[in-house]
Amino acid sequence: MIPAMRIACLLFDRITALDIVGPYEVLHRLPGAEMSFVARSRGAVRTDEGLGLVADQALDEVGAAEILVVPGGLGTRALTEDRALLDWIRAVHATTQWTTSVCTGSLLLGAAGLLEGREATTHWMMLEGLRRYGARPVSRRVVWSDKIVTAAGVSAGIDMALELVARVAGPGLAQAIQLGIEYDPAPPFDAGSPAKAPPAVLEAVRARAGR
Amino acid sequence: MIPAMRIACLLFDRITALDIVGPYEVLHRLPGAEMSFVARSRGAVRTDEGLGLVADQALDEVGAAEILVVPGGLGTRALTEDRALLDWIRAVHATTQWTTSVCTGSLLLGAAGLLEGREATTHWMMLEGLRRYGARPVSRRVVWSDKIVTAAGVSAGIDMALELVARVAGPGLAQAIQLGIEYDPAPPFDAGSPAKAPPAVLEAVRARAGR
Repeated sequence: MIPAMRIACLLFDRITALDIVGPYEVLHRLPGAEMSFVARSRGAVRTDEGLGLVADQALDEVGAAEILVVPGGLGTRALTEDRALLDWIRAVHATTQWTTSVCTGSLLLGAAGLLEGREATTHWMMLEGLRRYGARPVSRRVVWSDKIVTAAGVSAGIDMALELVARVAGPGLAQAIQLGIEYDPAPPFDAGSPAKAPPAVLEAVRARAGR
Repeated sequence: MIPAMRIACLLFDRITALDIVGPYEVLHRLPGAEMSFVARSRGAVRTDEGLGLVADQALDEVGAAEILVVPGGLGTRALTEDRALLDWIRAVHATTQWTTSVCTGSLLLGAAGLLEGREATTHWMMLEGLRRYGARPVSRRVVWSDKIVTAAGVSAGIDMALELVARVAGPGLAQAIQLGIEYDPAPPFDAGSPAKAPPAVLEAVRARAGR
């Protein structure tokens, strides 16, 4: 019998949808995967641009998981002081095999006290924000620190999840999932990191974000 | 004043979540973007693995759009005979600047009669299925044919949407969005297409899908 692989995905208002859907699309293909979407209360959360994602369980209904996925988004700003949520993250983390984040989700792991003294990453624009929580910011696509795995911004969750599948279930399954989701990326530009983007583009993005 | 860019995203049960969330995460950053999520009726649709995505509008509430996005998933199989849905796709297509699909969403465009005599693509495993609708299958990440843009499987919707932004609003914005979602892909393997995956992996994926 395949043991259950409970995968708890945190949802909240002003989440970035791709932060959670990227890992979801990969991890639900793990043998024994049991996905749960968890928010403060049951019902739909909303991304900034209005897409609703449904939380089927409230925080107090999910006490343990083999894998925890904490996504990012503008909503994380309001949550770094949310004691009930941070308690929940700590409690579930105590039960996990792997605790993961995408984008600014790592700031929630940090606020929960899980990144003290660890290397971690987040969206390139927020890297320095990790220091507040005693973490050492690393500009890398995916950062492994014991059982804590943090990914860079938004789309990096897909790469993180594939690395995680390889670790949990072997490279063959990770490759099969990559082929299944036809993840043979071909972006029309090579502008996906601050080191690669044209300076004017980098400046425009920073200016719009007020950084 | 920036003219409205109405972007209609089709939802249905057994959708592949990343098919729609990939383009969504890129396209909602277009100037004037007004996203709408549309299904047969209002309420949540469900992916195969249970994630609920909320449709805020029913088909008969959305009659026009500048951009139409038709995603794929196992649910498309039941929809290629759904006359009301195919009528809706045709009617909205008549109003669009761009009609797009991801993965097996192109089979719905085909069933609606929009791909007759055109080059188009879809998930690598379903390419030959396009012939049924008079289309010429092309194994390419993104295929442009007048105002119809079809993308390959699942994750290809991200690349398609970036190409579309470049066409609609210029390469500078496409690069800014790519940087914003930190789309600097680094999959741990190079197995994302049938030509690149190890033969044993390809065979396993085909066997599991019964192809």
